[in-house]
Amino acid sequence: MNQPAFTLKPVLFVLGELLAILGVFMVVPGLVDAWSGDADWMGFFIAGGFTALIGLMLVFANFERHLTLNRRQAFLLTVLSWVGISAFSAMPFTFSRLSLSYTDALFEAVSGLTTTGSTVITGLDVAPPGILLWRSLLHWLGGIGIVVMAISLLPFLRVGGMQLFKMESSDTNDKVVARVSQFTLSLVLIYAGLTALCCVALVLAGMTFFEAINHAMATISTGGFSTSDASVGHFNSLAVNWIIIIFMIAGGLPITLFIRALRGGGFSAFNETQVRGFLIFALFATLVLTGEQVFRGAEDVFATFTHVAFMVVTIVTTTGFASTDYTLWGHFAVACAFALTFVGACTGSTAGGIKIFRFQIAWKLYRSHIHRLISPNAVEVARFGDRRITEDVSASVMLFFFVYIGTVGAITLFLASVGLDWVTAVSGAATAVGNVGPGLGNIIGPAGNFQALPDAAKWALSLGMLLGRLEFFSILVLLSARFWKA
Amino acid sequence: MNQPAFTLKPVLFVLGELLAILGVFMVVPGLVDAWSGDADWMGFFIAGGFTALIGLMLVFANFERHLTLNRRQAFLLTVLSWVGISAFSAMPFTFSRLSLSYTDALFEAVSGLTTTGSTVITGLDVAPPGILLWRSLLHWLGGIGIVVMAISLLPFLRVGGMQLFKMESSDTNDKVVARVSQFTLSLVLIYAGLTALCCVALVLAGMTFFEAINHAMATISTGGFSTSDASVGHFNSLAVNWIIIIFMIAGGLPITLFIRALRGGGFSAFNETQVRGFLIFALFATLVLTGEQVFRGAEDVFATFTHVAFMVVTIVTTTGFASTDYTLWGHFAVACAFALTFVGACTGSTAGGIKIFRFQIAWKLYRSHIHRLISPNAVEVARFGDRRITEDVSASVMLFFFVYIGTVGAITLFLASVGLDWVTAVSGAATAVGNVGPGLGNIIGPAGNFQALPDAAKWALSLGMLLGRLEFFSILVLLSARFWKA
Repeated sequence: MNQPAFTLKPVLFVLGELLAILGVFMVVPGLVDAWSGDADWMGFFIAGGFTALIGLMLVFANFERHLTLNRRQAFLLTVLSWVGISAFSAMPFTFSRLSLSYTDALFEAVSGLTTTGSTVITGLDVAPPGILLWRSLLHWLGGIGIVVMAISLLPFLRVGGMQLFKMESSDTNDKVVARVSQFTLSLVLIYAGLTALCCVALVLAGMTFFEAINHAMATISTGGFSTSDASVGHFNSLAVNWIIIIFMIAGGLPITLFIRALRGGGFSAFNETQVRGFLIFALFATLVLTGEQVFRGAEDVFATFTHVAFMVVTIVTTTGFASTDYTLWGHFAVACAFALTFVGACTGSTAGGIKIFRFQIAWKLYRSHIHRLISPNAVEVARFGDRRITEDVSASVMLFFFVYIGTVGAITLFLASVGLDWVTAVSGAATAVGNVGPGLGNIIGPAGNFQALPDAAKWALSLGMLLGRLEFFSILVLLSARFWKA
Repeated sequence: MNQPAFTLKPVLFVLGELLAILGVFMVVPGLVDAWSGDADWMGFFIAGGFTALIGLMLVFANFERHLTLNRRQAFLLTVLSWVGISAFSAMPFTFSRLSLSYTDALFEAVSGLTTTGSTVITGLDVAPPGILLWRSLLHWLGGIGIVVMAISLLPFLRVGGMQLFKMESSDTNDKVVARVSQFTLSLVLIYAGLTALCCVALVLAGMTFFEAINHAMATISTGGFSTSDASVGHFNSLAVNWIIIIFMIAGGLPITLFIRALRGGGFSAFNETQVRGFLIFALFATLVLTGEQVFRGAEDVFATFTHVAFMVVTIVTTTGFASTDYTLWGHFAVACAFALTFVGACTGSTAGGIKIFRFQIAWKLYRSHIHRLISPNAVEVARFGDRRITEDVSASVMLFFFVYIGTVGAITLFLASVGLDWVTAVSGAATAVGNVGPGLGNIIGPAGNFQALPDAAKWALSLGMLLGRLEFFSILVLLSARFWKA
């Protein structure tokens, strides 16, 4: 099939719309700064105005009444919008009195939008409120962005086995746009509702409203930026820990689940499979590590269980908060923290990582492979929920594992080549690609900060966060010469 | 298809043959000890006699004139023979005046037979000559064993994509035995010839005959046991380093290559692909790391190039000698050492690891996947050499990656749970599963030793070495309930 020659017009039109919206959101932290008498407000207004202006220019220059996107335009839009929004979102950080370098600002913006939560900013407890709110807003906007993308765009683009989650109606034509808008409103409402619930709960548990709204946004988006250098550990409260655990789990569930639940429908079969897998896995990991800690002499079992559950959930949902420095819990906890970095929660949520459903598919493929080794002529169809795992899906999923590990490896080698020790390099690469947040070691561990890394490392980690967030293939197709052939 | 009910008779018959041969080989180091006046000789004679006796009993109790093996018997034989031979091969270590515990002895035997080369013995420079020779013999026997298995058995069992290398004649029936014996003689002759050549070269470079024969066996088998605690660094000779580099490369090439070359034939297309990939990769890695070292201020470029080439080749061929402690070369070298642990050389050689051809297949699958993402209706057939990569092969290869990484991860977690720090745990798991030898860190790095690890860790690493050596699936099928159903 010959692809139609493509024009950038619809891509730039949508990008313009997104930038215009981003510009409007930039004003919000500016208002908060102005209201609290912080001089930082001006930076937000300038950045917001500039962003909105560029956005509107793109919209008007590329206006089209009947918007359609073909495959290649959809890929291009995916990459351009995430890169473009990141680039503009970095501006307020450079304009603020923290006066971050553009490298640092971009790292922070990408970390925010990809809901990673690695930070280069220290002194959060005394930072301007507008900056804190902007970081949380980046999480929140990036979170809803990825959910919309994961539900509407990736299954259609067949990225990483996501075609398994394709809705029936999408098989026939190439019109993404209608499907994107079809779900977006209910998604945003659910997402905002969960955030509000989380915020109220955190206020009741003793946070100020400002702390609560920031943590609520960072929790539901499984982001991980906090308003304190000590992260959630700052509040030293079991109630806060459990509220955040529960809402991190909610953030790791597919949002469509809540939509169906509100409409009174049951789980779809594939959501049931991945949700059950995610919850059982998180519980299992928590019990094993709690057992190990108690066996090794932890005295307060409930407090231990709380901290372990927090650690497991925060890593598996790729949030990346810290309730305490778990790298001090011994070698097994450190190894678990690293291993959990790869897992991820459910697809259709804001979580990163490999994601549970891919492990479930790999396990099913493994089992039927073993059966075929024993009886080569046996015919066996692997299924996920009520759907057959086609060869297209299995190839996509297995290549996703390969590309995931390969990307972590390549970034590790690059980080080592610019002078990072091995533990920092490999855990930094893994945490960036998985959109988790903290790494291991003294520098970037849960008690550390990415500030001290060289600029080249920050660029590599920013790229890693974007690759992981966009599930690799959305970006990697652009590297193929064939993509650009008319 | 119903599998025929299976009897253990042919399995035990072949196992008996192998043990009888092993018993005979045990006498060789005994003779050396006796000749050099070392009292250790008796242990070898006792162990050898006992092993041969058990072997002969198995042979006579299960004698069959017309030996045939079906799939399940072949799997069972694979696992039973490697476990059984390891268990008996450990005996001389416990009987010697080093008086290793059985755990240590088994670790050393498994490390020898799987051509891993991790050792628990210190004071090699003053160890009884018989023990040193026994370690080298284990490498040598294990090496030829794995080559015979990789050429004759694994393609037939369809393990890890090896069916790609199936010879045409093997498609029709289940008779493995004829094909095993068909090639074995020429393989053994080539293997012995290469060992002799290497030995002569090492003597000419200044080694004693005893040192030379031991290092020759450990080199051609890509094993890595040395006669000195300082490994090859003990000889501090550029000539020795280059001879060993060249013969490690020979050990990493498919032995069938030499057979065809001697018969005057060219490369087969698939061997050409994997050999070219292996050589180009090793050269590329060497040049990059040499460049980095020179850039960072290494003064003697040729010596640096030699040590880097040695390090790259010893890890990629999964030999595991050390010409110097490369973990002192800085963070990039450490990260490279770890990454290279996974690569492996050619299949049909004694090398372990994932192996180059699987990366080549994954890369081809990746490319055609990207093309299908761009044009979903394009039909593309991925090829390896002159063969089509069937869905069966691609699924096997991609699952191999998955199981490989999963096994390394599981062993890492286990090692951490018995108290190993993260770097030791993850590098120990990777080096064991890859059959390489040294890990990273102070304990098991190239200047270290596995002696200090707890017993549980040694058992886990022994299991890891066997899993990697037998390409996982040969062992994992036995865990399936379906395997045992009549």
